[in-house]
Amino acid sequence: MPELRLNLITREWVIIATERAHRPDEFRRERSHHAGVPVSHECPFCPGQEARTPDETYRDGTPWRVRAFPNKFSALSQQGEPRRLVTGLKRTVEGVGRHEVIVETPRHDGHLAFLSEAEFGPILSAYRHRFLALYADPRVRHVILFKNHGEEAGTSLAHSHAQIVGTPVVPLQVRDRLVEYIHYLDSSGECLMCRIIADERGDGTRIVAENERFVAFVPYAALSPFHMWIFPKDHHASFGSITDEALADLGRVLGKILRTLYLGLGDPPYNLVLRSLGPDEAEVDYFHWYIAIVPRVAKAAGFELGSGMYINTALPEESAAFLRGVRDSASGKA
Amino acid sequence: MPELRLNLITREWVIIATERAHRPDEFRRERSHHAGVPVSHECPFCPGQEARTPDETYRDGTPWRVRAFPNKFSALSQQGEPRRLVTGLKRTVEGVGRHEVIVETPRHDGHLAFLSEAEFGPILSAYRHRFLALYADPRVRHVILFKNHGEEAGTSLAHSHAQIVGTPVVPLQVRDRLVEYIHYLDSSGECLMCRIIADERGDGTRIVAENERFVAFVPYAALSPFHMWIFPKDHHASFGSITDEALADLGRVLGKILRTLYLGLGDPPYNLVLRSLGPDEAEVDYFHWYIAIVPRVAKAAGFELGSGMYINTALPEESAAFLRGVRDSASGKA
Repeated sequence: MPELRLNLITREWVIIATERAHRPDEFRRERSHHAGVPVSHECPFCPGQEARTPDETYRDGTPWRVRAFPNKFSALSQQGEPRRLVTGLKRTVEGVGRHEVIVETPRHDGHLAFLSEAEFGPILSAYRHRFLALYADPRVRHVILFKNHGEEAGTSLAHSHAQIVGTPVVPLQVRDRLVEYIHYLDSSGECLMCRIIADERGDGTRIVAENERFVAFVPYAALSPFHMWIFPKDHHASFGSITDEALADLGRVLGKILRTLYLGLGDPPYNLVLRSLGPDEAEVDYFHWYIAIVPRVAKAAGFELGSGMYINTALPEESAAFLRGVRDSASGKA
Repeated sequence: MPELRLNLITREWVIIATERAHRPDEFRRERSHHAGVPVSHECPFCPGQEARTPDETYRDGTPWRVRAFPNKFSALSQQGEPRRLVTGLKRTVEGVGRHEVIVETPRHDGHLAFLSEAEFGPILSAYRHRFLALYADPRVRHVILFKNHGEEAGTSLAHSHAQIVGTPVVPLQVRDRLVEYIHYLDSSGECLMCRIIADERGDGTRIVAENERFVAFVPYAALSPFHMWIFPKDHHASFGSITDEALADLGRVLGKILRTLYLGLGDPPYNLVLRSLGPDEAEVDYFHWYIAIVPRVAKAAGFELGSGMYINTALPEESAAFLRGVRDSASGKA
């Protein structure tokens, strides 16, 4: 019997369609990532091609290990003021904001799944730096940090990179969810995410990885197979205030998860997104930042578009058990 | 300068990224649809293969022109009661509901873009029939009718078909939007969609097609290039109460739009979804049913997933002008 599960964090029902369920290993595919091309002269993100990108906003190391710069094909203009215009039913804001690229490794064939801990640190530090820098722009109201891995996940350049966008408005989806989290806090006295983290750790069936400060699990109402969340265990509303120690812990969990996906599913395409409030809201008690990773092993179509609901053909508990069972070659542990 | 536009109906901001804009004809692709295989013995939706599908729930004509039956890989179980279970933060509903396939033509290579008016009528009648039939099931709270055309739009079988799902819950996205429409009615005294339709017809720049009872236009804050809405001009909250005359008018507009997409863009993949309330809510004054058509010419990725916002690289007014300029071979008119 299929079942519908309510995802209290994304605020939507998910149909867990066990009748058409696939076994987790049916999602495995041939790997598409090929190591062996450390530098490509055709790639604008490679060392030696720095002049082809807009002026750097961030550089770590000499020679650089991570660098950031405005997206050459920015969705928003960095110049001007985000003036609002209201005409009848038309609500317009001038498209002013920030849109940067964070190149995560100098190696053209570098893959986050196989970076060492020492290489992960500078990437997450860059994320934090640019996150705070974009919020420091008074025209920016909300920052979205994301990574598209693989062509089916929407990336056009293979060289490993993340993107960060500062918009002059708060997305309504973010606002809508916050209102619910506030209601939850008002009615229960606690942060919804703190409660969910405690429940998941107590239950254990959906946990994928955990260390001192972070826990990763497949949500109870995962929107697709292997959908995962990474939460700081302690309550923090903004990624911007993460400490260096916590960044190191986050790198270890994230690295483990990305290796697990690579090894278990054959380098699937995925989207990674950071859900966080800005530094001005770092102290609110109703929100808890997290990272969502959605492997693109299923295709959203008319049903999802027409309802906002998702159909997940894999049982979240089975997805998690499968991921836990993948042997982690870097740590040598199962 | 890019701009952000607020879509009052979907309740989200869209970044109209004119800096990275493509000219409309850059979205044109090679056609993937090939006529010439009227019947395939491998296709379970073809005449002669009826025994391979579950028992019919609808058949029109002898021999049949349109037929419907439960989806063999149904996301929901047709047996049982949608019992609710609440345990701590877990909200579950047993996955009971309806999920049917509507085969739209006996021809294996039939394409909605090139059906005659006489062939369109039976399809839309079948839509209406199954829409009402699913709502007549007391376990069904909401019905989503949709069509995925082309592999990139999520279809696995090439033979032209739609799907209809009756869920035992109302999607939260539908609820959230309704609340806003109710607020709009309360504050303005009119239906938001009636107001938008009047504005669009007065403006004209985004109109693509129109006849006595229907109007099709690219939304002011279209979420992607060539995104279109088809609205009945008169206020109706439920597709279920559409008259035969209106069905004929709808078929003409829909046929024209699908031909336009086929001819102008080279048979793009698309999703079509019906947004409607059920027959019990047919008389409400705050909602107005419509059909949305989203050609899959752009790829949603991490940004969209992390924010609910969209980036549209084509100016809606240019998308509409391009579509208006496509010569319609069936009507012989530009």
